[in-house]
Amino acid sequence: MTTGKLTILGCGSAMPTFQNSPSGQILELCDKAFMIDCGEGVQLTLRRMGLKTARLYNIFVSHLHGDHCFGLIGLISTLGMMSRRQPLHIYAHADLEKLLRPLLDYHCQDLSFEVVFHAINPRKAEVVYEDRTVSVSTIPLKHKVPCCGFLFTEKHRRADGNGGFYVESRRRYAYCSDTMYTEKILPLIEGTDTLFHEATYTEQYADKCKLTMHSTARQAAEIAKKAAVGQLIIGHYSARVDDHGLFLQEAKEVFPDTLMAEERQQYQI
Amino acid sequence: MTTGKLTILGCGSAMPTFQNSPSGQILELCDKAFMIDCGEGVQLTLRRMGLKTARLYNIFVSHLHGDHCFGLIGLISTLGMMSRRQPLHIYAHADLEKLLRPLLDYHCQDLSFEVVFHAINPRKAEVVYEDRTVSVSTIPLKHKVPCCGFLFTEKHRRADGNGGFYVESRRRYAYCSDTMYTEKILPLIEGTDTLFHEATYTEQYADKCKLTMHSTARQAAEIAKKAAVGQLIIGHYSARVDDHGLFLQEAKEVFPDTLMAEERQQYQI
Repeated sequence: MTTGKLTILGCGSAMPTFQNSPSGQILELCDKAFMIDCGEGVQLTLRRMGLKTARLYNIFVSHLHGDHCFGLIGLISTLGMMSRRQPLHIYAHADLEKLLRPLLDYHCQDLSFEVVFHAINPRKAEVVYEDRTVSVSTIPLKHKVPCCGFLFTEKHRRADGNGGFYVESRRRYAYCSDTMYTEKILPLIEGTDTLFHEATYTEQYADKCKLTMHSTARQAAEIAKKAAVGQLIIGHYSARVDDHGLFLQEAKEVFPDTLMAEERQQYQI
Repeated sequence: MTTGKLTILGCGSAMPTFQNSPSGQILELCDKAFMIDCGEGVQLTLRRMGLKTARLYNIFVSHLHGDHCFGLIGLISTLGMMSRRQPLHIYAHADLEKLLRPLLDYHCQDLSFEVVFHAINPRKAEVVYEDRTVSVSTIPLKHKVPCCGFLFTEKHRRADGNGGFYVESRRRYAYCSDTMYTEKILPLIEGTDTLFHEATYTEQYADKCKLTMHSTARQAAEIAKKAAVGQLIIGHYSARVDDHGLFLQEAKEVFPDTLMAEERQQYQI
C-alpha cells in the first residue's frame, strides 16, 4: 500500500486572517497528486513549500464561493509559464468553465497545455474520476450554493489465484467542506480512514453557523463519530475565532481522534 | 507635510517564488491609502500585516498581466464581507472591467459598496485622479501589453498673503513597472523624490530581459540617475535570481541611493 499524504495549503474560511488563507489541499495517493479546492494564494503556498506540480493532473472544486476557487487562474497561469505539457483536469460545477474561460482566453493565450473542464452535479453522489488505482466520487453537501465533498478511494489489484485479479478497495479519504450538519452524508463516508470536515465555528457562534450554513467543530465531530471514521481533520476556521485550540477542544470532547488542520502541515491519512 | 509611506505587499515577477509574491503596494500619502497593482495574494498579505483598508478608496493597475491584477476579485470580495460602504475606484485599462464584471456579478452579488471602473489610456501621459491634496498621472511604459506607471504628486495649499492660496507641488512618487528601458519616461519623472522602477533581471539575463521587455537592475539605476531622482526602489524580481543582493549591487554601482524592495517592508518616500 502506498503512502497517503495530505498537505494543507489553506484552511481558513472566506475572510483571510493573520493565520489562515482560503481553502486548498493536496492529497497524494498512489503516486499521484490531487488538488482539492483552490482559493487565492494556494499556488503561492505551493511554491513557498517547494512542492512540485508535475504529478498534479486533477483538481476537484467543491463549490464556487471565491475562497474555494479564486486561486485557479493564477495557478494555471503559472503552470503555463513552466511550459507544462500534460492536460489539467478540473472537476467542478458547470459554471466554473463559464467564469474561467474568458480569463484563460485573455490572460493565458498560447497556454502550453490543455485545461479540461468536467462538469459535475453536486446534488448527486456518483463517481466522477477513476483510474487504475484511485476513484473519486461526490458527496452532496448542504450549503448556500450547490456544493459537494469528494471521497477518494484507493484501489488495490490483488491476484485471484487463477491468473486474473480482483480489485479491492483500500484506504479512503473524504473531504466535506462547506456544509451545515447533515446526516445524509453518513452512508457515503461510513468507516472512512480519514475525514476532513469543515468546522467553521465554535459553539459560541452556533447561531451564526446556522445562518451561514456551516458546521461547528462539535458538529463535525458528531459526524465523524456517527460515521465511525478512523480520524477526523477539522479546518475552514472562521476569522471570528482567534484561538484555534478551541475548535480542537470542542471536537475532541465528542471525537477524540481529531486533528486540527494547520497551513503548510502534512498529515498521514 | 504629511508622511509618505510605501508598503510592499508583493515584489516578485510573474512566477511566484519562496521569497516573492506577485506585485502590489500601498502608498500612504496625505492620510489616504492608494493601492498600486494587485497580484494574487495581496489581500492575504494586507491581512497578515494587520493593515486597515478603511482609507483605501483607489486602486491603480499598471497593466493586465495576471501578476498585477489577479488579486482584485479576492480583495473586493473580502471588502464586501467587511460590509464596506465607500465606493472603490479602480483605474486600469478598459479591458479590466470586461474581465472583472462577470466575476463580480457571480461571486459578489449584493456587494455592500460600489466598484467604479475608470478606463485609462496607458499610451498617454495625463492626470487620471485628482483631489484636494494628491494628483495621479500616468507614465506610458514599454511592455508586451499596454502598460503605464503612475506619478503621485502631493499638493500643498499655501496662503498667498492676500486671503487666497496657491497650490504648490510637493513630494512625488513614481511607479514604473513593467517596462523595458525607455528614456521617454525621463521628462515625466525628473527630480521625483522616490522612483520605484522594475528590475526584473540581473545583467546575467540581459538577453532574456530584452525578450520579455523588462529591465535589468542596472537599467533601472540608469533611469534613476538620468532622471536625478532622490532615491530608487527596485523590485519585480525574476524567479531566476535567488540572491536579491545581486540586484541591489548592480543598481548601486550606477545609482548609490538605491533600496531593494522586500515584501512586508515599509519605506519612507
